Amino acid sequence: MPVQAQIRVLYGDTDAMGQAYYGNYLKWFEVGRAEWFRARGMSYREVESRGVFLPVVEAHCSYRKPAFYDDILYIATSFEFAGPARLKFEYEITRDGDVLTTGYTVHVCVSKDRKVLKPPDYLKALLEPNHETIR
Amino acid sequence: MPVQAQIRVLYGDTDAMGQAYYGNYLKWFEVGRAEWFRARGMSYREVESRGVFLPVVEAHCSYRKPAFYDDILYIATSFEFAGPARLKFEYEITRDGDVLTTGYTVHVCVSKDRKVLKPPDYLKALLEPNHETIR
Amino acid sequence: MPVQAQIRVLYGDTDAMGQAYYGNYLKWFEVGRAEWFRARGMSYREVESRGVFLPVVEAHCSYRKPAFYDDILYIATSFEFAGPARLKFEYEITRDGDVLTTGYTVHVCVSKDRKVLKPPDYLKALLEPNHETIR
Amino acid sequence: MPVQAQIRVLYGDTDAMGQAYYGNYLKWFEVGRAEWFRARGMSYREVESRGVFLPVVEAHCSYRKPAFYDDILYIATSFEFAGPARLKFEYEITRDGDVLTTGYTVHVCVSKDRKVLKPPDYLKALLEPNHETIR
Repeated sequence: MPVQAQIRVLYGDTDAMGQAYYGNYLKWFEVGRAEWFRARGMSYREVESRGVFLPVVEAHCSYRKPAFYDDILYIATSFEFAGPARLKFEYEITRDGDVLTTGYTVHVCVSKDRKVLKPPDYLKALLEPNHETIR
Repeated sequence: MPVQAQIRVLYGDTDAMGQAYYGNYLKWFEVGRAEWFRARGMSYREVESRGVFLPVVEAHCSYRKPAFYDDILYIATSFEFAGPARLKFEYEITRDGDVLTTGYTVHVCVSKDRKVLKPPDYLKALLEPNHETIR
Repeated sequence: MPVQAQIRVLYGDTDAMGQAYYGNYLKWFEVGRAEWFRARGMSYREVESRGVFLPVVEAHCSYRKPAFYDDILYIATSFEFAGPARLKFEYEITRDGDVLTTGYTVHVCVSKDRKVLKPPDYLKALLEPNHETIR
Repeated sequence: MPVQAQIRVLYGDTDAMGQAYYGNYLKWFEVGRAEWFRARGMSYREVESRGVFLPVVEAHCSYRKPAFYDDILYIATSFEFAGPARLKFEYEITRDGDVLTTGYTVHVCVSKDRKVLKPPDYLKALLEPNHETIR
């Protein structure tokens, strides 16, 4: 089940074409991702404070329709593993039920000194909440 | 032949992980694209002033190594058609010869009122400079 | 009475010093200002759609304490005239009751072609809601 | 003597009013400040690597004329002390000799753990290059 978040498009997010600048969607994906973690019971801030960082290694965005100043956008975020230490988040941004943008980001799990790690247990418990029950 | 551009990473481009925030690369791709147009003899500002807009419909970014505050980054930009009214730009961002990030953007050619257009002659002449000589 | 708004600090808002980048506060002032208009009964988008624009002519920010990633910040916005066609908004940004930043912006009232205007009646009614009752 | 820097306005820097968004000028002040340090012989990155940080405590911006997409802007930066541990930088942003924006930032000198410091000798030598000769 995707986790929902919402943002409002600022004047500073728009560009001279009169629509939201394409680079801002990656920031809005971040909003979705942060709410996904919070909905699973631990903020990404807390994840980092326990010693794991999740830098982005890949990002993709498909722009179908523009977003405009003052629009409220809904960001639906879902998760799947893309490898043992690779996390993939998928995003769908809508306005009034209309899909404007879809995309994904892929993250690796690293320690503070940037060594790749397998997700530690506290993180695994977030990412695979039903894992124990399935087994 | 890719066109070269360069930027310097600002403090405002970095994030609390101590590296350039992932969303900024789309802005740096824009720098590369703008210089590509200029190198072909017409700025993107001039392209727009003649009535054609090139909104992004797809963007992709692969992050291999982080960029840090005050780094000088080189952006190599090349172009190919991805359909009659679809333009694809490819980017490679390096620091001291080391590839940090690669990516691409796909653009459609539209009029001011957002109708899809085939690129008009002045734009085609930029995008396919050798077209006439080949024929 | 100030109007309240709230934002959450994104990773993309932070910098390598580990705190929110100083330029972002002007964006958060915009959030406060937008909610001020909405609370008075007309969004700034609606103000513009009726033909009046309010570009910023002056901005000031005093930074007392830093904001950090994932903080929830509260923005209290109040308004006063700074001249017949000059609008002044004042902002106070707090976290858990602690004042982090204060500032103001001054705006002029212009038409679409950038001619300075006295605020038209629909805008005056927003800016001076008690004007008629006072008279 | 002010130090000169230059930037080009990106599409991502503009807003739906068709001009550069007001928050971006603080970023461009940063560009000016960074070049000021470099011109004095030590980059701000190097200043930080030696243990001193210069967070902003005050910022001011006066917007006289708008900047537009693809404009080349010149940033002239000068410095004066505003107290023993307070640094003030002043900025003037011009386009073709026309002043668009002026402003200043005030910084305090702090250690990594945010204790206020008097500028150490290596920093003083940058900030007061003629000090010894005057004595």
